[in-house]
Amino acid sequence: MKKQIQVGILGFGTVGSGVIRILKDHNEKIGQVTGEEISIKKVLVRNIEKNRGLISEGIELTTNADDILNDSEIAVVLEVMGSIDVAKEYISRALKAGKHVVTANKDLIALHGKELVALAKENQCDLYYEASVAGGIPILRTIVDSLASDNIKKVLGIVNGTTNFMLTKMTAENKSYEEVLKEAQDLGFAESDPTNDVDGIDAARKMVILTRLAFGMHVDLDQIETRGIRHVKSIDIETAKQLGYKIKLIGSAEEANGSVVVDVGPVLVPQDHPLAGVHNENNAVVVQGAAVGETMFYGPGAGELPTATSVVSDLITVAKNIRLGTTGNVFNSYQLETKLTPDEEVYAKYYLAIEMLDKTGLFLELTKIFAASDVGFDKIIQEPQASQTSKVVIITHKMNKKQQKEILKQVEQAKDMDLLVHFKVMEG
Amino acid sequence: MKKQIQVGILGFGTVGSGVIRILKDHNEKIGQVTGEEISIKKVLVRNIEKNRGLISEGIELTTNADDILNDSEIAVVLEVMGSIDVAKEYISRALKAGKHVVTANKDLIALHGKELVALAKENQCDLYYEASVAGGIPILRTIVDSLASDNIKKVLGIVNGTTNFMLTKMTAENKSYEEVLKEAQDLGFAESDPTNDVDGIDAARKMVILTRLAFGMHVDLDQIETRGIRHVKSIDIETAKQLGYKIKLIGSAEEANGSVVVDVGPVLVPQDHPLAGVHNENNAVVVQGAAVGETMFYGPGAGELPTATSVVSDLITVAKNIRLGTTGNVFNSYQLETKLTPDEEVYAKYYLAIEMLDKTGLFLELTKIFAASDVGFDKIIQEPQASQTSKVVIITHKMNKKQQKEILKQVEQAKDMDLLVHFKVMEG
Repeated sequence: MKKQIQVGILGFGTVGSGVIRILKDHNEKIGQVTGEEISIKKVLVRNIEKNRGLISEGIELTTNADDILNDSEIAVVLEVMGSIDVAKEYISRALKAGKHVVTANKDLIALHGKELVALAKENQCDLYYEASVAGGIPILRTIVDSLASDNIKKVLGIVNGTTNFMLTKMTAENKSYEEVLKEAQDLGFAESDPTNDVDGIDAARKMVILTRLAFGMHVDLDQIETRGIRHVKSIDIETAKQLGYKIKLIGSAEEANGSVVVDVGPVLVPQDHPLAGVHNENNAVVVQGAAVGETMFYGPGAGELPTATSVVSDLITVAKNIRLGTTGNVFNSYQLETKLTPDEEVYAKYYLAIEMLDKTGLFLELTKIFAASDVGFDKIIQEPQASQTSKVVIITHKMNKKQQKEILKQVEQAKDMDLLVHFKVMEG
Repeated sequence: MKKQIQVGILGFGTVGSGVIRILKDHNEKIGQVTGEEISIKKVLVRNIEKNRGLISEGIELTTNADDILNDSEIAVVLEVMGSIDVAKEYISRALKAGKHVVTANKDLIALHGKELVALAKENQCDLYYEASVAGGIPILRTIVDSLASDNIKKVLGIVNGTTNFMLTKMTAENKSYEEVLKEAQDLGFAESDPTNDVDGIDAARKMVILTRLAFGMHVDLDQIETRGIRHVKSIDIETAKQLGYKIKLIGSAEEANGSVVVDVGPVLVPQDHPLAGVHNENNAVVVQGAAVGETMFYGPGAGELPTATSVVSDLITVAKNIRLGTTGNVFNSYQLETKLTPDEEVYAKYYLAIEMLDKTGLFLELTKIFAASDVGFDKIIQEPQASQTSKVVIITHKMNKKQQKEILKQVEQAKDMDLLVHFKVMEG
């Protein structure tokens, strides 16, 4: 006879409904895979009067979290309510009460993951959060389990669906940032205050989580150079295309000699790289291993059902662990002291667009700035503009971050020259 | 203090060397992840005199499999020798002796997997074979673990690196099948007898394995309609390109109403589908789940280190299971009765190229053949050829397999018409 595992769910929003739907629809298969019957005991809701239709049939609703957190029959708590402080309090209480926890809350895990993981370990509880990065893509488990035999050198990719949707639209339909932002807001992909998405903050939080799992190191948000897409212009997308690139918002974490560098920003991706083919609100994460080479994991980055699928997959893992008596092994036991790579050792190629007065000698001056930092050009396009200025687009050879900062400073200080944008360029 | 897990390895070829190299290089990390120290006790080789350099230092070699299979201290056997019959005998003996087994042998698992899985279960042993499909991509574990919460509807992709390398070359460099085959052979990607690769047999074997894991059903090789790339001509690649497609060798397994249909053959893939961006010898598998939608896993399909990485990842799972006392749970416990979808319910669009005499009334006749089966055209291109013939290329509307067979039969029987090729067309 199957044992029953009782589950409490915090939140009945879109993800919560998705979780409940999957658990109801796939009950038989889940039972076969886990050897356990999973049953939803209680769901925390904000408004108990709200009509939720058939999906809530047979499920006890409550507006009081204590009903779940103090119920000794509930073995697993699924946190799908969002927010940071309240969710943190509930999760902490659940772990202290010996309940296993699955959460989809990336903000919480990015900010307080270290502390919560420690608390879970202390209480011999499972704490899983696959849905927190790239919703439908099982990237965290893949990194932890399947690549455990490899030394991961790089984790990078498109981890924010909203901005990828916007950049896809800008590229395909030649629209402006403002137009596509409005479109994304109308479709519900972007919030009315889009800061977290368009300024790269959401992507940076996900990179905190990926860095922890891939390299065993904890970086703080302020240790991640984070740039968003507000300054990406249609003209840059067009120029990048002519040069054989697509512009994508890329989060990247790279290890070298035992230290890491993590950044988020618009990057020129070679057109035939698999990341260039990731359209709309999809996400994709490339993992580069010393032995395995380059692998990529692609799929929906968000959405009710993809995110809910990841939550239920985590729940299934917990159920298996309960049956096997192996709970309390944290997601990743691989931990190293955090070291940041110094600027001198962080290399990349860059795309720079500079506007300058149409004046003899100015181009020579620009060339001298690069020569002074010992940096060469890979490609240059110069286009005359209206009103006596010209625009110079440069793709540089590889340079280190120190050289890059010096060049940007010199260009910004130079008379009659304006630095319009600068983006990293990914090598093919 | 860490427990030691002693491992025996059958085979010291390219994959075997890779496994030994990874176990030596990543010893510390593997110890941290598994909580166990893994040590290589003995390796079965063909020629004990061969100079293997530094890598074999400190490792005991033997030419007698009994030294490994009868050694009660060896807990895990890694089979990386290839071949079918001998490997099957050794693996069976290992399982009967209570040893866990990891194998990279897709032919063996495709042909005898069912029997070996049963034997492993009987003896409470682990049997893992991640490396058998898409070498460096952890696709089997992903299907089993992370998508357990979803109903998988379709698994399809590029699972043979050799033919993808050849088609990539044919597409990019406009070369003929014969030219790129020779090139692949010179580079060591294709064997001197390339039948298994170019006729789709290797891909079909991998589809047997994927179908078992994704749908819990066992299909035999002769239940898979298997077509290779021998008949793909440069001209078809060119025409497909004009129509917005790339030709790829695709293995596909699709479930509908509790039955499956599995096939392998050249398919026209829409140019903006992620599979169209999978180049050279890389593999990629798309998994379509009812809830999660479309996800894709991309990476190296073969090669010493990618394959070895998957073998070591499996070994790490076994080591964790040993530590947790949870061995003997087979890779996938999800099993259903095998049912094949009847022709009437298998729908697709098709690309047909037909050569016909330049004769009034023939095109009408062709149109009538399609109309008789109630199938419409999506696109038609007609091109006059030299020597009084013309070539008609048709992309059909969706039709079922029964309609398709009837149309192919009628075209083949019609006077003054030749069916040149027919390929499936993937929808965007």
